[in-house]
Amino acid sequence: MVGGGQLARMTHEAGIPLGIRFKLLSDTAQDSAAQVVNEVVVGDYRDLDTLRRFAEGCDVITFDHEHVPTEHLRALEADGIPVRPGPDALVHAQDKGVMRARLAELGVPAPRNRLVSDARDVAAFAAEGAAPGTGDGFPVVLKTVRGGYDGKGVWVVRGADDPNAAEPFKAGVPVLAEEKVDFARELAANVVRSPHGQAVAYPVVESVQVDGVCDTVIAPAPELAEDLALGAQEIALKVAHELGVVGHLAVELFETADGRLLVNELAMRPHNSGHWTQDGAVTSQFANHVRAVLDLPLGDPRCRERWTVMANVLGGDYPDMYAAYLHCMARDPQLKIHMYGKDVKPGRKVGHVNVYGDDLAEVRERAAHAAGYLRGTVVE
Amino acid sequence: MVGGGQLARMTHEAGIPLGIRFKLLSDTAQDSAAQVVNEVVVGDYRDLDTLRRFAEGCDVITFDHEHVPTEHLRALEADGIPVRPGPDALVHAQDKGVMRARLAELGVPAPRNRLVSDARDVAAFAAEGAAPGTGDGFPVVLKTVRGGYDGKGVWVVRGADDPNAAEPFKAGVPVLAEEKVDFARELAANVVRSPHGQAVAYPVVESVQVDGVCDTVIAPAPELAEDLALGAQEIALKVAHELGVVGHLAVELFETADGRLLVNELAMRPHNSGHWTQDGAVTSQFANHVRAVLDLPLGDPRCRERWTVMANVLGGDYPDMYAAYLHCMARDPQLKIHMYGKDVKPGRKVGHVNVYGDDLAEVRERAAHAAGYLRGTVVE
Repeated sequence: MVGGGQLARMTHEAGIPLGIRFKLLSDTAQDSAAQVVNEVVVGDYRDLDTLRRFAEGCDVITFDHEHVPTEHLRALEADGIPVRPGPDALVHAQDKGVMRARLAELGVPAPRNRLVSDARDVAAFAAEGAAPGTGDGFPVVLKTVRGGYDGKGVWVVRGADDPNAAEPFKAGVPVLAEEKVDFARELAANVVRSPHGQAVAYPVVESVQVDGVCDTVIAPAPELAEDLALGAQEIALKVAHELGVVGHLAVELFETADGRLLVNELAMRPHNSGHWTQDGAVTSQFANHVRAVLDLPLGDPRCRERWTVMANVLGGDYPDMYAAYLHCMARDPQLKIHMYGKDVKPGRKVGHVNVYGDDLAEVRERAAHAAGYLRGTVVE
Repeated sequence: MVGGGQLARMTHEAGIPLGIRFKLLSDTAQDSAAQVVNEVVVGDYRDLDTLRRFAEGCDVITFDHEHVPTEHLRALEADGIPVRPGPDALVHAQDKGVMRARLAELGVPAPRNRLVSDARDVAAFAAEGAAPGTGDGFPVVLKTVRGGYDGKGVWVVRGADDPNAAEPFKAGVPVLAEEKVDFARELAANVVRSPHGQAVAYPVVESVQVDGVCDTVIAPAPELAEDLALGAQEIALKVAHELGVVGHLAVELFETADGRLLVNELAMRPHNSGHWTQDGAVTSQFANHVRAVLDLPLGDPRCRERWTVMANVLGGDYPDMYAAYLHCMARDPQLKIHMYGKDVKPGRKVGHVNVYGDDLAEVRERAAHAAGYLRGTVVE
């Protein structure tokens, strides 16, 4: 696996029971996954020679992130190394412009969008979206087509004279303009697909964002109409099939107030919206990603529990979490803590907790309490 | 953790979510756990210098097996390294003579037993157990007090002229004679205890042995009378408390036809009879062992499912199990496979499977089928 973050850490954890050998390419020997994996190559994934050296002895290569250059992936494939997901699929998770164009071809519903070149283009894009007599069409969302995550690389432009209308163009990366969807909530439809075409769809979940960062995931999404749930799974399965995805695909969606689904983002790797599966599904996203990548039959994706809630633990002001561990574990013996071995920095994702049970309100409270206590924002 | 077997492998897996650093002392770099752990010291656990070098930087030391010499454990403690379980507890899992004497002091029910020196002693021990007019008191079980496992170091002596009556004395290790209990079935009562004295008791399970090796574990033990279940848990909690055990304690018991419980063996580490907890309990034995050793509050030991069945996978005639994986995973998408990364040798424990559900007969059939198919004894 290329990339030493928490996704690789948890993929390794899920691979251990399968008896496989797991080799890691990591930026440093201290990265989250590098701490727990036996075979670690420290190197730069942007360097083809490093990738080739890493690939020696690997049966297949997969990824903790989408940042490996497409041309390097093609070079590895030319060397005879299976790359899963492959470059032709992965480019849709790397480049939002390519993704938007392809989803439009497939007829998958998405926010109105267009590549833009400057602030004047942005104003024109906005105006096209303005209903007659309703103003200038702002706000509009601008995104760099590559490199953004967790709210980075995303700007909301509230009017033609908003400084954000010019900011995204400074990096010299193509910029995509999108309508700012007035959504009721955010959903994620996660699926896993094998090279031989088997696919499984996880229950659709609700994802609650705070400041552009995933805060809480509720599985399954509460009170989601069955046709919307099936529609979201169908979109994700269609995208996985048409794009030839191998492994885990997360499709982030907006549910609009008038009951439509619009695709927001794609990720082709285990995803934060699937962390609940570690304790709440029969087969976790990590185990199924490994099974898919190795072309093994996939495991059952269904819920084991009525409700499972995942809450991210962000770093707070206290670098040593041992005392908080004591409190949280003693308070809730059913709490499932997943920490990433990362140094605590304010706002950094350093772990998550999963809680399951029959009473959603109680389950949410327990998850939020534990995550808040570990961060230091809940005191008792 | 000292010892590179599958117990260390699965303990590491369970420790990853806690964000801890796991260091391993392993006989070879190819051992089951050594394949998946980042920090591996290859060396001989019987050598104190090796142990001391390994212990540098460790906050606490625990074990995958009971074979580290007691005097070495005392030396590490004198160096200031917490050893959990400590030598005063662990000696009861290392030496069956010490264990039997201590359990007798505690009034814990056990098979009639005595240390014996030669075949004549064995005949005298047998005769003492013969009810009037019922013969010579054979069969009798002989065990070397140290070093036995999985049926090794155990002999059944069927009469005074049975060659097995002399065999155990050849190794020069003290030998324990025990009555051969006419048991209805074997049970295991597993508990985990912390340094600060918190303890949790797992549901009592039934353990089915074949040729002296654990074949199947059923959780909870079917149709076990509630007073016997509570009695077994009380015995295990009492032993853990009185012996000062820290970590997981497995108490293997005989249930006699007339409804009594007799303690057969103790193990102070994660144990084969607790593997079902990985998928069938709220907190696995491995996670709770780690939490105990680190003096963190313990997790809920209760069942998540009505029935969970564990079946061991023994090595068969086929060294490459990939084809068997394909079949088993495709046949049963709920099957939980746990392989140890070991080379397949006939009869060697190379993994186990867990299956859970509401119908015990169906759950047993699925577990036995998968374990048999992976071994190569079931063909379809």
